[in-house]
Amino acid sequence: MASYERLIRFEDSTGKAQFGEPLISSDETSSLDEIVACGALEARCLNGSDIFSLSPSTETAKVKKVLGLLSPNDVPIVKCSRREAGPLRPTHPYSSNLEPSVASYNEDIPIPKLAQEDQLDYEGELSIVIGKTGKDIPQSEALDYVAGFVPANDVSARKSQRDPKFAGGVPQWCFSKGFDKFAPLGLMLVSPKVVGNAGNLRLQTIVNGEVRQDTSTSDLLFNTQAIISFIIQGTTLETGTVIMTGTPSGVAMGMKEPLWLKDGDVVEVKIEALGSVKNRMVFQ
Amino acid sequence: MASYERLIRFEDSTGKAQFGEPLISSDETSSLDEIVACGALEARCLNGSDIFSLSPSTETAKVKKVLGLLSPNDVPIVKCSRREAGPLRPTHPYSSNLEPSVASYNEDIPIPKLAQEDQLDYEGELSIVIGKTGKDIPQSEALDYVAGFVPANDVSARKSQRDPKFAGGVPQWCFSKGFDKFAPLGLMLVSPKVVGNAGNLRLQTIVNGEVRQDTSTSDLLFNTQAIISFIIQGTTLETGTVIMTGTPSGVAMGMKEPLWLKDGDVVEVKIEALGSVKNRMVFQ
Repeated sequence: MASYERLIRFEDSTGKAQFGEPLISSDETSSLDEIVACGALEARCLNGSDIFSLSPSTETAKVKKVLGLLSPNDVPIVKCSRREAGPLRPTHPYSSNLEPSVASYNEDIPIPKLAQEDQLDYEGELSIVIGKTGKDIPQSEALDYVAGFVPANDVSARKSQRDPKFAGGVPQWCFSKGFDKFAPLGLMLVSPKVVGNAGNLRLQTIVNGEVRQDTSTSDLLFNTQAIISFIIQGTTLETGTVIMTGTPSGVAMGMKEPLWLKDGDVVEVKIEALGSVKNRMVFQ
Repeated sequence: MASYERLIRFEDSTGKAQFGEPLISSDETSSLDEIVACGALEARCLNGSDIFSLSPSTETAKVKKVLGLLSPNDVPIVKCSRREAGPLRPTHPYSSNLEPSVASYNEDIPIPKLAQEDQLDYEGELSIVIGKTGKDIPQSEALDYVAGFVPANDVSARKSQRDPKFAGGVPQWCFSKGFDKFAPLGLMLVSPKVVGNAGNLRLQTIVNGEVRQDTSTSDLLFNTQAIISFIIQGTTLETGTVIMTGTPSGVAMGMKEPLWLKDGDVVEVKIEALGSVKNRMVFQ
């Protein structure tokens, strides 16, 4: 099991980057940024430079700045499970694979030309970060493989995904969601020790300050354990794999007159107890 | 550009593994194994242990045994482009992402329980191996990014892929094709210096000695340059990425009474000038 309850990467007062456990209560997790801005955050340090093999330490440090937590080098692959999976209710979670196209809190998301016009969408999602490599794991052991949970935005280009002229009538999930930095993740990993399977947390997606998605992770068709034990069948899940768990209603695609994202729009995905991820869309 | 025309990894007479250029004519590429068995193969050595940054050498060595060329560590991701992409002729290649679940020539493919019964299928495919990292590359420069071509078998579990009860009515390409070792690759990379864009090579898939697929790579809907320059838009393609280019007719799925693969079946995919990949299916 992980040697932390919550994990951040931060710059300490000497300018050094390190990992640590922020000394906060769960009420404060959504406002990490504000706490740091007040100069008030402290962290218990964790030793090591590999996020997936940190060891405890007794030292504490002042947090000068919270840094991005996971880089593409930490993440071998991003997997997307889905809340619904088409015309029929599936007996198993659907899953597709994306590039490790992760970005961080506050990082701008570059939007390539072919993803811009009348199609750019957000998907607020609970994401699972796998902390140790495994294969063929039963549901009863699945949480042992979880390094933590994190809020994510599964940024999606709907024309690339769905336009039959473009894709020939089959959905192009991998292509339309895998552009560089299309998977921004929050600033903090929260361990199952704190939130269990993260199965009953409020999730909100906020575009330029307007709430667009507002629901609970309790409406996921499959819970964390079911998703992991399904996709790990016959397939080695490597340490660092990120599993996005699917988005609730409220995306632009589902609107009568879709409010597609525009150049400069800021999207925040906020999950109770997990904090948030907030990024500006920057058309290239 | 690569410092070889053809690349193999081999054990020399001292037992050392190294990379080299086999000293053969293109007529002999399909029978590498037989040449080695005769003790007749020599190779010009290449210096280095990273397959994607080898440098020339003037030494030659006897080849005692040809070794597997690419391991999952060399391959960040496998991408599948498709020959056809559903009910409509697409304007762009479809592409999906698989785990780097590569296996090698002659390596047994372990078939997990949920991929066994009445569904296991072969897909003989030309595959492209990317030799240098890039993004937003025009077709005119695409071949510069190719380390070489290789025959591949895109092993597929059709129930996981298509059964609506299972997947909820949407195709599960990533899950059904990404099981460990479901992407066996040939023994030799052949550079564009030898085969150009590999756009007119005979491709055969042979199951237990019976020819099931027999066509030319000239019937691909999109050629190598079009596929690369499409999927590299807005998405960094990392060195080592394998792109499978889609399979022609002749797979079991397309038969009136499908000849699904059974435990112990041996599948060989053979491509003119590129050699072959041959693997036994071993039900777990």
